[in-house]
Amino acid sequence: MPPEVLVHVAPSDHPWAEHARAAVERGGGRLGGLAESEAVVWLDARADAVVDVLHDRIRWLQFRNAGVDALIDAGLIDDRRTFTAARGIYADGVAEHALALILASLGGLQHAARRSPSSVDTLAPRTLAGMTVAIVGAGGIGTTLAGLLRPFGPRIVGVTRTGRAVTGCDVSLSADRLEEVWPTADVVVLCAPATAATVGLVGRDVLRAMRTDALLVNVARGTLVDTDALVEALDRGWIGGAALDVTDPEPLPDDHPLWRQPRAIITPHSANPSGAQRGLLCELVTENVRRFLAGDELLGVVDPEAGY
Amino acid sequence: MPPEVLVHVAPSDHPWAEHARAAVERGGGRLGGLAESEAVVWLDARADAVVDVLHDRIRWLQFRNAGVDALIDAGLIDDRRTFTAARGIYADGVAEHALALILASLGGLQHAARRSPSSVDTLAPRTLAGMTVAIVGAGGIGTTLAGLLRPFGPRIVGVTRTGRAVTGCDVSLSADRLEEVWPTADVVVLCAPATAATVGLVGRDVLRAMRTDALLVNVARGTLVDTDALVEALDRGWIGGAALDVTDPEPLPDDHPLWRQPRAIITPHSANPSGAQRGLLCELVTENVRRFLAGDELLGVVDPEAGY
Repeated sequence: MPPEVLVHVAPSDHPWAEHARAAVERGGGRLGGLAESEAVVWLDARADAVVDVLHDRIRWLQFRNAGVDALIDAGLIDDRRTFTAARGIYADGVAEHALALILASLGGLQHAARRSPSSVDTLAPRTLAGMTVAIVGAGGIGTTLAGLLRPFGPRIVGVTRTGRAVTGCDVSLSADRLEEVWPTADVVVLCAPATAATVGLVGRDVLRAMRTDALLVNVARGTLVDTDALVEALDRGWIGGAALDVTDPEPLPDDHPLWRQPRAIITPHSANPSGAQRGLLCELVTENVRRFLAGDELLGVVDPEAGY
Repeated sequence: MPPEVLVHVAPSDHPWAEHARAAVERGGGRLGGLAESEAVVWLDARADAVVDVLHDRIRWLQFRNAGVDALIDAGLIDDRRTFTAARGIYADGVAEHALALILASLGGLQHAARRSPSSVDTLAPRTLAGMTVAIVGAGGIGTTLAGLLRPFGPRIVGVTRTGRAVTGCDVSLSADRLEEVWPTADVVVLCAPATAATVGLVGRDVLRAMRTDALLVNVARGTLVDTDALVEALDRGWIGGAALDVTDPEPLPDDHPLWRQPRAIITPHSANPSGAQRGLLCELVTENVRRFLAGDELLGVVDPEAGY
């Protein structure tokens, strides 16, 4: 490594900054000030604030986020340098939370948690064995989820843009065959990034095409679902229930009807326990610094064409 | 099979009776009236009402229940005939519900389900990876649960009366080593039958010995836990939380303090979806009728000495 190649961690007073600086050094990187650095590790979850630090000599920028759709939309991702997102590192946490939402919904835990003993008599819990679970956007999180689901004995359908074979899935389909998925899945889990092709994916027509006892789970991005259509679908019984870790808008206003919908479970974008996040991000930083210095391909390179 | 050996299904107007009669016939059995039968399939969940049908010529009685502790305590189980419980058939449903309770508790879903957005800011979700999960009473349900937990990456400790090696567990301990388990487990799942040795197992001393962030899960019998001590433990922060599918008393009275305890999730003994129950029970009936006719050992023979 030429001595002049330095890595800057920003914002430098971020609670994770000390850990990230140590991670850079573990990867063999030298720390530097912003002006003199050619690589930046950006820790702020509000990724668009990165414009304040981008300067012409920066050749690589590592984001903390897995999803960088907002940056792509804002035109921030250019081809003058490499941008990497923290894809994959959140897979375990998000997949585990997705399974928690599925199991809690199937078991009727949202009713039980209301602690009105009389209201829980109507529970009709269901089990995953024999159900069809469709994972829409079967990337890192979806593949991890398939592995967690496997011992429960459902039939797992993995949907990706290209239809490539997805590890742990019984059936792998391309996104243009989603029409076959909606009417057949007992559980639909949205794990897809927010792209031009996925925003608004689950709207009125899709919700009407789904089974009346289907459970819709969203651990990806709130914008994948038309929230007004979802409220209507739940109110009218077009689908059986919804379990959402992400919503649009986010956070949901206190008076939003979804909060009162008995067949919905909503968690506050909590699928990523932040303690685990920091450790995993630091591991990624170390590995990417090592690769950057060695001239190897970085992990999680953002592809504006694909939208993630 | 001598033509005089008949099987009776009781109560004959039970909603499952028609299915059970078909199951008897699938096993090669002939159906008979109560007075002329030597075997009875007892469908009422209130197993102690079976006294009304027991007569001297009955050689085998098949219960619908998995737990028959109340019958043993009542002295109903004699050695003049064979009693079989529906052990094992509920393992999938109960284990899946146990995992739902664990994941929901670790993910703080009981707070989220209260739909007060402001209250959910304090969530500190945790994941199972690297945690120690102790399964106390690692029989059919516990072994199934171990298999479901495995992909999440916890260390699994299986506790049985004898300490035999438990499939899917990293460590297998006998019940006399429970003292080592309480202070080390992040999650304790009670799957043990209610016997003289297990009733009141989790009392004040055990709760004080547990980790302050530990989660106690009970999918077995409410009587395994001293409820008053549990309320105190949650109020005082001796343990981190409780997720209970069974309680003592059951059901909990509407004004019971556990309903208002923010760190408790309570489900109404709902771990066994009844639709699945019926099908699995019928499969067991068919198999046991076949074995009865062939003179083979029956599945789930009740052992009053062991207490289950």
